[in-house]
Amino acid sequence: MALIKKPTTGMKDILPAEMRIRDYVTQLVKDTYQTFGFTPIETPAVEHIENLLSKQGGENEKLIFKILKRGEKLVLDPNTQEDDLADSGLRYDLTLPLSRFYAAHAAELPSPFKALQIGPVWRADRPQKGRFRQFVQCDIDILGDPSNLAEIELITATTTLLGKLDFKDFTVRINDRRILRAMAESSGFKEKDLDTVFIILDKMDKIGVEGVKEELVSAGFDSGCTDKYIGLFEGDINGVSYLNELSDRLAGFLEEECIAGLAGIMESVEKVKNADFNIIFDPTLVRGMSYYTGTIFEITMNEFGSSVAGGGRYDEMIGKFTGNKVCACGFSIGFERIITILLDRDFTPPKAKEKYAFLIEKGASADFTASVIKEASNLRAKGSCVLVSMMNKNKKFQKEQLEKEGFTSDNIREFYHSEFRK
Amino acid sequence: MALIKKPTTGMKDILPAEMRIRDYVTQLVKDTYQTFGFTPIETPAVEHIENLLSKQGGENEKLIFKILKRGEKLVLDPNTQEDDLADSGLRYDLTLPLSRFYAAHAAELPSPFKALQIGPVWRADRPQKGRFRQFVQCDIDILGDPSNLAEIELITATTTLLGKLDFKDFTVRINDRRILRAMAESSGFKEKDLDTVFIILDKMDKIGVEGVKEELVSAGFDSGCTDKYIGLFEGDINGVSYLNELSDRLAGFLEEECIAGLAGIMESVEKVKNADFNIIFDPTLVRGMSYYTGTIFEITMNEFGSSVAGGGRYDEMIGKFTGNKVCACGFSIGFERIITILLDRDFTPPKAKEKYAFLIEKGASADFTASVIKEASNLRAKGSCVLVSMMNKNKKFQKEQLEKEGFTSDNIREFYHSEFRK
Repeated sequence: MALIKKPTTGMKDILPAEMRIRDYVTQLVKDTYQTFGFTPIETPAVEHIENLLSKQGGENEKLIFKILKRGEKLVLDPNTQEDDLADSGLRYDLTLPLSRFYAAHAAELPSPFKALQIGPVWRADRPQKGRFRQFVQCDIDILGDPSNLAEIELITATTTLLGKLDFKDFTVRINDRRILRAMAESSGFKEKDLDTVFIILDKMDKIGVEGVKEELVSAGFDSGCTDKYIGLFEGDINGVSYLNELSDRLAGFLEEECIAGLAGIMESVEKVKNADFNIIFDPTLVRGMSYYTGTIFEITMNEFGSSVAGGGRYDEMIGKFTGNKVCACGFSIGFERIITILLDRDFTPPKAKEKYAFLIEKGASADFTASVIKEASNLRAKGSCVLVSMMNKNKKFQKEQLEKEGFTSDNIREFYHSEFRK
Repeated sequence: MALIKKPTTGMKDILPAEMRIRDYVTQLVKDTYQTFGFTPIETPAVEHIENLLSKQGGENEKLIFKILKRGEKLVLDPNTQEDDLADSGLRYDLTLPLSRFYAAHAAELPSPFKALQIGPVWRADRPQKGRFRQFVQCDIDILGDPSNLAEIELITATTTLLGKLDFKDFTVRINDRRILRAMAESSGFKEKDLDTVFIILDKMDKIGVEGVKEELVSAGFDSGCTDKYIGLFEGDINGVSYLNELSDRLAGFLEEECIAGLAGIMESVEKVKNADFNIIFDPTLVRGMSYYTGTIFEITMNEFGSSVAGGGRYDEMIGKFTGNKVCACGFSIGFERIITILLDRDFTPPKAKEKYAFLIEKGASADFTASVIKEASNLRAKGSCVLVSMMNKNKKFQKEQLEKEGFTSDNIREFYHSEFRK
């Protein structure tokens, strides 16, 4: 029986043209983030099933690829449950593994620690266009820094990177989970209802303020609460002046420094920015992950419908490993989305190397072949790319193929050992 | 319950110091191999279980991490077998996925196609020092080239890379599976016994020619066969002159061009080499993988006991996907072994960037913070690494920590917003 040629469901092979863009972006990410003092680290693709199912990942936990226990550990009898079969799984993000990493190695790391991670994660999402079951995430995180400098540096680094990729006119939206809570609680919503309220609020950009109001009412919430809450989202809600106004309106429901902190982040980011973007306060920003505890932020671009980067503060996760609270804040760019945008733009990475093709007539002696390779070696030592290949019967087709691969006809050379040249 | 801090059994986190070396080697590999015209590609970590268990991988197939079928596909009843539970698994090497890749995409690729792959593979080996269950492989392969140019280019590229890593005085050992066979068959061994004979022959470097003889005899092989076979391994067996002598001794058991081809490869490699190494004919070289069909080669170094690279020709594997034979030849460097050697040597990658640390006194205004970050931005734009951090209470300890991380005291600057400087 023939073996299977296609990749497994929802996964994809990466061909040379896309690979060139991916390699270029990866290198730019590394170079840019390293100038900000972020240090590359790596964790294994495989994580303990207990960690993966510890409720840090929300909906992603339903999408885990579980790995079968090995060898004698696997018992199959009538009482076997699915959960008895797996003791590990593929990571669904880079944040949980980073928290494990920091918990295990904090003593060997500087404090605060600025981590850079680029690597694949796996989610068994329903396959659909542009969404794959293996995809690369690219995260920067600052661990052990309680100050707003963490947010400012994360946002500045990420926006600097996007600017270098020629992304323009994008928007950084920022909010704080504590403001989100305070707005709902000050309107009279109960603790137990907050998740439902936020899921509805999260639809604001699609259904508008009237739509949110309707959904809250049809979800059975008190109309007094709903009216008061909706009132908080009317008018110009994106400026620093509204943020400062909230300080009074939410008094008693919010730690005082929260609003000033957010305003300070916005002011600093605006002053140091290296790219063409706006930073706005967005009280409707929710961000799905349950682990966020403070600031949350997201980058959106008109060119691409949904967000291209997202992050926030998660001060409680590392403590789940160590028992001691460690402040943490991270920003993740949508690597695959950025690649898709660049592919759509027909982006070509700057060509670093001159490319030559040397074609050798068939039947050459070891000596003749060596002389051609030596000539190639000289160019290679200078950093040029030299493809050495046997000449095909159909030389014309071979040269056409090479030109498609970016070898200009001037740089395709033919080497004949026989006297009778065609 | 606290979450688990350690990585899963046999896997490891990669800390900044090792990561710097890994990133340096990865970049050097890419740069070097790309000058030889190798093109980066990627395949998913997850492969069809049918492909993984198709007998291409020999012993590695016993070490596969199998992935549980997803959702409704999983049926657990008293008749369930382990093989019913998994429809995919983690790849154990990069050669099988490359063959699948080429079978699926040949029409979109140049011919011959020179592939470069760097990526993790997984094997559930018994955990031991220096051997991990996730490790990086780094392969170059030439697909669709039947000529010896493939071997010459693969060996030249790999040895050029090792030379750039300052590896000296290493040995490329080369053999051909067809010579291996012919030596055994011409001595009278039967087809069905060849695997056993080769497993014993493979121990030559450990137990010597007498040891091999003893083991063949105690395995019950005919002493006439054994004596004749052992006779082929006496004297100076590593030179081209012995290779040419074999041409007569193996007449009738070997395609004629096989010996001339091998001699030609050795001659060309010797002439074009860019590093300090020898290439020798080694008729005792076996290489474990069952898929090799012709030339096989390996690089050994005195500095490190076992091989640091290995490869060969596998002209039959792609045909298992397509039904049509496609010539293929590859060379894989032991990425993890090379990293281990560099770590043992206390290797430090050349520092590309100047590193600065800016420490800001606590309680700074948004304005003050922004002014410091702006100064950092100017240096970052020039490619320097600037870590901006809040000043800790214990400033002395913080600076000591930074010096450990490679920030020289000259490049650690303090920024005070208050009038009372310490």
